Amino acid sequence: MQKIDLNCDMGESFGAYKIGMDESVIKYITSANIACGWHAGDSLVMDKTVKMAVEHGVGVGAHPGYPDLLGFGRRNMDCTADEIRSYVISQVGALQAFCTVHGTRLQHVKPHGALYLTAVANETVARAVAEAIVSVNPNLLYVALAGAKGEMVRRIGNEAGLKTVFEAFPDRAYTPEGNLVSRREPGAVIKDPATVAQRALRMATKGVVIAIDGSSVKLEAQTLCVHGDTPSALDLVRNIRETLEAEGVAVQPMSKA
Amino acid sequence: MQKIDLNCDMGESFGAYKIGMDESVIKYITSANIACGWHAGDSLVMDKTVKMAVEHGVGVGAHPGYPDLLGFGRRNMDCTADEIRSYVISQVGALQAFCTVHGTRLQHVKPHGALYLTAVANETVARAVAEAIVSVNPNLLYVALAGAKGEMVRRIGNEAGLKTVFEAFPDRAYTPEGNLVSRREPGAVIKDPATVAQRALRMATKGVVIAIDGSSVKLEAQTLCVHGDTPSALDLVRNIRETLEAEGVAVQPMSKA
Amino acid sequence: MQKIDLNCDMGESFGAYKIGMDESVIKYITSANIACGWHAGDSLVMDKTVKMAVEHGVGVGAHPGYPDLLGFGRRNMDCTADEIRSYVISQVGALQAFCTVHGTRLQHVKPHGALYLTAVANETVARAVAEAIVSVNPNLLYVALAGAKGEMVRRIGNEAGLKTVFEAFPDRAYTPEGNLVSRREPGAVIKDPATVAQRALRMATKGVVIAIDGSSVKLEAQTLCVHGDTPSALDLVRNIRETLEAEGVAVQPMSKA
Amino acid sequence: MQKIDLNCDMGESFGAYKIGMDESVIKYITSANIACGWHAGDSLVMDKTVKMAVEHGVGVGAHPGYPDLLGFGRRNMDCTADEIRSYVISQVGALQAFCTVHGTRLQHVKPHGALYLTAVANETVARAVAEAIVSVNPNLLYVALAGAKGEMVRRIGNEAGLKTVFEAFPDRAYTPEGNLVSRREPGAVIKDPATVAQRALRMATKGVVIAIDGSSVKLEAQTLCVHGDTPSALDLVRNIRETLEAEGVAVQPMSKA
Repeated sequence: MQKIDLNCDMGESFGAYKIGMDESVIKYITSANIACGWHAGDSLVMDKTVKMAVEHGVGVGAHPGYPDLLGFGRRNMDCTADEIRSYVISQVGALQAFCTVHGTRLQHVKPHGALYLTAVANETVARAVAEAIVSVNPNLLYVALAGAKGEMVRRIGNEAGLKTVFEAFPDRAYTPEGNLVSRREPGAVIKDPATVAQRALRMATKGVVIAIDGSSVKLEAQTLCVHGDTPSALDLVRNIRETLEAEGVAVQPMSKA
Repeated sequence: MQKIDLNCDMGESFGAYKIGMDESVIKYITSANIACGWHAGDSLVMDKTVKMAVEHGVGVGAHPGYPDLLGFGRRNMDCTADEIRSYVISQVGALQAFCTVHGTRLQHVKPHGALYLTAVANETVARAVAEAIVSVNPNLLYVALAGAKGEMVRRIGNEAGLKTVFEAFPDRAYTPEGNLVSRREPGAVIKDPATVAQRALRMATKGVVIAIDGSSVKLEAQTLCVHGDTPSALDLVRNIRETLEAEGVAVQPMSKA
Repeated sequence: MQKIDLNCDMGESFGAYKIGMDESVIKYITSANIACGWHAGDSLVMDKTVKMAVEHGVGVGAHPGYPDLLGFGRRNMDCTADEIRSYVISQVGALQAFCTVHGTRLQHVKPHGALYLTAVANETVARAVAEAIVSVNPNLLYVALAGAKGEMVRRIGNEAGLKTVFEAFPDRAYTPEGNLVSRREPGAVIKDPATVAQRALRMATKGVVIAIDGSSVKLEAQTLCVHGDTPSALDLVRNIRETLEAEGVAVQPMSKA
Repeated sequence: MQKIDLNCDMGESFGAYKIGMDESVIKYITSANIACGWHAGDSLVMDKTVKMAVEHGVGVGAHPGYPDLLGFGRRNMDCTADEIRSYVISQVGALQAFCTVHGTRLQHVKPHGALYLTAVANETVARAVAEAIVSVNPNLLYVALAGAKGEMVRRIGNEAGLKTVFEAFPDRAYTPEGNLVSRREPGAVIKDPATVAQRALRMATKGVVIAIDGSSVKLEAQTLCVHGDTPSALDLVRNIRETLEAEGVAVQPMSKA
């Protein structure tokens, strides 16, 4: 049977500040990337979000980012490899403790925002993240961008002794080379729920995406990234989930996918 | 054979800011309370300090504090029990990850500054800390102030399923009731190395301290707190260590003490 | 003609985090208490909020708080008078710079959350805040809680050379002594728009509030505190504003009230 | 009479963390670049440092940096021009308030660390800083790196309506083009006090520096940057000051230089 994971960033609220509709989206996803209190999230939120994930049978992942709450981890920072390595260890360790508290095991690590993009573009950063993960727990899955750019991360992950998982974005346009179309370009984000659901289905069942020029591109992905921050995002996720299941695809955490 | 542990706060540097003479004091102590990046310390410092402790056979402890770098964790903050519980879990988790990285196990947890003092004075806070520790790892030792006030913490710790370790301060004056003399009072801090070493010896071998009124007070302690932030503090520690060993006391980590 | 000011906390968003319906509530109020980036707010938000206040003819106030973004400035912190004084100077200075940028002058200072409540309860803190304000600009108005507790703040403010402005809360119940009923007690918050508007009117025109026991209590107030964080809060404000104006009360910034 | 300013970064301590020998170096300098609490410094330190500068007749400057205490403002962050503009306004405003408190006027603004270097390399950033400064106070001097790279900043400053002041580094080697030799190259930092003092003298009196290849390079500078963080740095400053004065150069704040 074909299978796929649906992952979503969660636990991004901070103190009095709320972001995301975590309680709603949790019902449709199978893996949660939980912020670790650096670029977003706080300890109470981590506690509550891990608990909620466990209750819904959702795989728990750490979502470490740069130390930049003000910029929500979306701004690149010129950190050394050693700094990045230690930042990831700290954040993964903190989230792992909440996993222990709630009787589960950490499943994966997906870097957030600028750290994610830098890890995909820069081998030194990719290696720093991989070494951090393997040093804390070599059984953790390392989530990277599907496509040509992710291959480098996979190689680095393999060298470090990690299993890498590729993620694709059903609501994002792809170039014929299998890269994401920049958000600054027209058509970069696809909003029609039916179209997005069909793209997700094709990714899950055929390992293929229709690129922005209409060509069919191979795209290996074990997990699809979805969002839960707006009602329309929620609509997309529900549609994706229902379409996948209607077509007989097993939607399950990436550790099983 | 009689035995005692010498513990010291360490890893309190932050970024470009250096505090403490960790490389020097590490040679004389047997347990290190390592800051976890909230009131002091950062990820690189945690990494380096845990590594150094392991190399010296020093037991590693987490030293969690309030989220107040500006106040170095020394100012009380009106936090709820749930907030404190989650703060301790996060900090212990982060330090535990560095222990894994360096092939050791976390030995103990000693709250820092205002959190330490509040835990001794306030049962709700003591319980929040105890529950945090036990939920992450019930084998961790919970360090509390020796004396009447510490008994409450020990009871709370026991109820939570933790082993509590009492610490005494050889360079601090005690009241006849076995409490610390406030730093604002004259004679509260003892500076003569020989006197301090003799006090440490008496604590370790007889479980007794000479109070500020000259009376002899029973004071059960498995660990003695020393400091490494100044050359004269370093002198005190070396003196304590040499005196204890000259008298045949085994100086060893609190997990063995 | 009778006159009153309506003040509202604003500019509490931070980075990617949004709080409050500032663009909507700004139309109904006459003074804005703008967060200064410590307990809430950031530089971009300060810039935008001051600009918006100027465009709407709304008086600009600084809303300084404790250095506790995680707790939204709502938790008391054991700070020294000197620390508090310097914190208020920094925050007022930062907001004042944005006033200069947008061609206005800072009108008032209203401490936020735990700092506000501590200043009302603790003479040392009230004085630290007053001295901070006067040292930066003696023409700034110092906003304090109307009623018995505020009298102390007014005396302290006067001694420092400041003019104090009292604020009342039309949606909060008062004791017969003129103090706020604790939020933990039933009936502490009044939600019916018509009732709240009538209370606001009585405060503005008669200097009186009907206490929770039905008695009529004298309550001098130059400004009424309203909220803009929910649609129902917005309803209350609009009702208050319309009722006041329908009854011929001039609603204008506290510097004119 | 020839004249020159000696500027030094100051006020970089934070909470319990001490950096710099401010009390010693203040005697030899004529302008202080005071950290504003973002990359270094805190409100108490700002208060104390401005007070000390005033007492010594030293010109007070704001030293704004990126919001990165952990990296001491030395790591580049991908901020938008609008973010940088607002960050500089906030920091200058806060320091300006302490100037008011201590009866002086802010003299200059010198960006710190990565912000300084980015402003020299990137026209957009240079303009964001210039616009921030001019919007708060068009009389403030904008300190930039002397040499070819600084010319761009001067042009941007002029366009914004600011006066730019060039600074040179007597203890740093220069290329024949008048740029700093990278610290990673041998000979980049000059440590001999007599040599450094002679370089400072030549900069002040002839507007010339001997480049690393022995050639004489024109280098216009109104202020020389010195350091106060180590005893040997202090030696350098004292030597520079004494040499300049022995040769009849007036050492005075950049507002007069």
